Amino acid sequence: MAGTITEKIFSARCGKEVTAGEVVMAPISGAMIHDITGPLAIEKFYEMGGEKVFDPAKIIMLFDHQVPADSLNAAENQKNMRIFAKEQGIYNYDIKEGVCHQVTLEKGRVSPGDIVIGSDSHTCMYGAVGAFATGVGSTDMGFALRYGCLYFRVPESIRAHVTGRFQERVGAKDLILNIIKDITVDGATYKTVEFTGDTIESLNMAGRMTCCNMAIEMGGKAGIVPPDQVTKEYLSGRGTWREENLASDPDAVYASWRDYDVSDLVPQVAVPHNVDQVVDVTEIAGTHVDQVFIGSCTNGRFEDLKEAALVLGDRKFSDDVRVLVIPASKTEYLKALRAGLIEQFVQAGALVEAPCCGPCMGGSFGLIASGEVSFSTSNRNFRGRQGSTEGKVYLGSAATAAATAIRGEITDPREVR
Amino acid sequence: MAGTITEKIFSARCGKEVTAGEVVMAPISGAMIHDITGPLAIEKFYEMGGEKVFDPAKIIMLFDHQVPADSLNAAENQKNMRIFAKEQGIYNYDIKEGVCHQVTLEKGRVSPGDIVIGSDSHTCMYGAVGAFATGVGSTDMGFALRYGCLYFRVPESIRAHVTGRFQERVGAKDLILNIIKDITVDGATYKTVEFTGDTIESLNMAGRMTCCNMAIEMGGKAGIVPPDQVTKEYLSGRGTWREENLASDPDAVYASWRDYDVSDLVPQVAVPHNVDQVVDVTEIAGTHVDQVFIGSCTNGRFEDLKEAALVLGDRKFSDDVRVLVIPASKTEYLKALRAGLIEQFVQAGALVEAPCCGPCMGGSFGLIASGEVSFSTSNRNFRGRQGSTEGKVYLGSAATAAATAIRGEITDPREVR
Repeated sequence: MAGTITEKIFSARCGKEVTAGEVVMAPISGAMIHDITGPLAIEKFYEMGGEKVFDPAKIIMLFDHQVPADSLNAAENQKNMRIFAKEQGIYNYDIKEGVCHQVTLEKGRVSPGDIVIGSDSHTCMYGAVGAFATGVGSTDMGFALRYGCLYFRVPESIRAHVTGRFQERVGAKDLILNIIKDITVDGATYKTVEFTGDTIESLNMAGRMTCCNMAIEMGGKAGIVPPDQVTKEYLSGRGTWREENLASDPDAVYASWRDYDVSDLVPQVAVPHNVDQVVDVTEIAGTHVDQVFIGSCTNGRFEDLKEAALVLGDRKFSDDVRVLVIPASKTEYLKALRAGLIEQFVQAGALVEAPCCGPCMGGSFGLIASGEVSFSTSNRNFRGRQGSTEGKVYLGSAATAAATAIRGEITDPREVR
Repeated sequence: MAGTITEKIFSARCGKEVTAGEVVMAPISGAMIHDITGPLAIEKFYEMGGEKVFDPAKIIMLFDHQVPADSLNAAENQKNMRIFAKEQGIYNYDIKEGVCHQVTLEKGRVSPGDIVIGSDSHTCMYGAVGAFATGVGSTDMGFALRYGCLYFRVPESIRAHVTGRFQERVGAKDLILNIIKDITVDGATYKTVEFTGDTIESLNMAGRMTCCNMAIEMGGKAGIVPPDQVTKEYLSGRGTWREENLASDPDAVYASWRDYDVSDLVPQVAVPHNVDQVVDVTEIAGTHVDQVFIGSCTNGRFEDLKEAALVLGDRKFSDDVRVLVIPASKTEYLKALRAGLIEQFVQAGALVEAPCCGPCMGGSFGLIASGEVSFSTSNRNFRGRQGSTEGKVYLGSAATAAATAIRGEITDPREVR
């Protein structure tokens, strides 16, 4: 029977042929918990009578949202999770590695064809390596920690088929914002968004991660890119490559099929207060900003920082803007440092912080005041997301963020030469 | 009439000969306000009918305690201070430069013989360049912002006369902890601690800053090092050198005169919960630590980071310790980065954060949980200072901190070879 990549993954992992709409108890290849949602998941695990987790080697633990601990509560939570990790034999990356999703992929904890859950909504990012990955609540996570499996209703899929070649200074972030504009914030609810086409095939892993990361912003249960040679190379020496034919069958059934051509796409910006309120940068160029954040699991990789640095050149950032650069992981940080980017950013007036979620979460640091405007490479611009509910958050690429930080107002990166 | 350096500064600035104990209205050469205490000082300024500050060029404003803004309150405070700075024509270093005391000196805002106030207790650090500098409350600061002067009772002085040559891996922080042990936490209340002797003369500015910074930990109104060639070189191209003879007269009257010989001094550690509870590192070696903080206005300079790096070598920090390295300013950060230290620290497992007060303040980030232990190069180990009141803070030099971070327990830096 013909199947989508999602159906094929569930069929392979469940050992029987399943189709979208079916409810199955599926084994979990990996489960990620972090400092914010981990404590409740662990509580649920114990409430369900848990004593030993199903497989400590399949649990990914780290702290990234409130690090270094920004409150007594955070400090106690992290302490208790450390104790849990030691007792259970779970390897804990602690506060040292970076943002959960980046680290999970980077450390090879996800393979193509895996079913992975995380107690964080952007877990869908792992679809970049051809896994089915989704965020779950703490009760589901508690159950999975104990039993190593979880009920799923196998999702239908939306095929986002992308062709054409990006213009200079336009890329994956602009594409995904454009797709979200089209599909809307709830247009993919409980569906897998499957990214295909020659544009996707030519995207590096960083770009694929950006796309899959934001599937949830359309309500998607998962985002996924069929694994290929790029995936295989990324996993080499890092994770496990599975020689399964995971790509959707030609006659697979989709809930909807959307075609996109990026040839004429210009830099995109999501304006307040919803991720699908997306416009061409030209429409809002000149909007004053107070803070620019370059980072997060969406766009905090070396490739993003490099893009920002190319726009920056030997310029300075505007004196009137606070510019926060936060690499997504220690690995990405060291790559950027060795390429001279950290020096370049600091010298230009940015603050470079140790890898963590930073202002994306809006509770730890980098909060904006009432009336202030943030331009951010992260994934959510909800009212109050980065501080005051009377503030505004715009989302865009690292290139647009850098151009904006230089001028102190939203700027088309193609204009900064 | 013979005078101490303190008496001579007040005499020069007030234009009449004054002696310790006299109350004078003295002109203010500089006034520093930051994000925590600034808002209240500004409020007081307006309450006193202030409209324009006495001299915008003499006011130093920056944000370092809660940066990037770690709460809505902090974000609003900083926003309001930015507005005040713009209205008043005050140059605001904002969040971009680092810790107030380091930045104030680094930017040449203090000269020998100045009377400088700051709304922060460690303002006494500016004594390192031969100024009389002291922390004041917000009401005093509000008054000074308006009138450019302030009442002082000219302090008596304690002479801390230091001779001998430091052993390897022993330095200014060990010396000042040893002096505090001797003088005790209130032994210098309202007095100037005047540091003299060949050991002080041979100290670089970083070391002098460390000593003066901690004068307040003995209750001192100020700490001061008579300006000399080292001071002059530091100020070259940075601040104003005054060719006044500021050194205390040979027959100046002191409240007390203490002699110290550093020849046999070993690394010193202040144990919980008071800064004068100081022991030789050998007495508490082996104490488990959870977090190590290398930074702050006390010991976050390039010289400190270099010292830590020398101890570290190509080792890794213990996996069980969170190591936070926070250079005291952007300038110090860039020096460290260009010398390869940032890479060395990150590679060894540390988190390097953008310049700010960090865990020293204990409210912003890097808080410890109950039962946890911090080893810190900062200036205060009060109960709860870095988080939980059920946690413990030890203070020592950057060398001792690095050795401790490598082993995961308090370690004599002379043992790590």
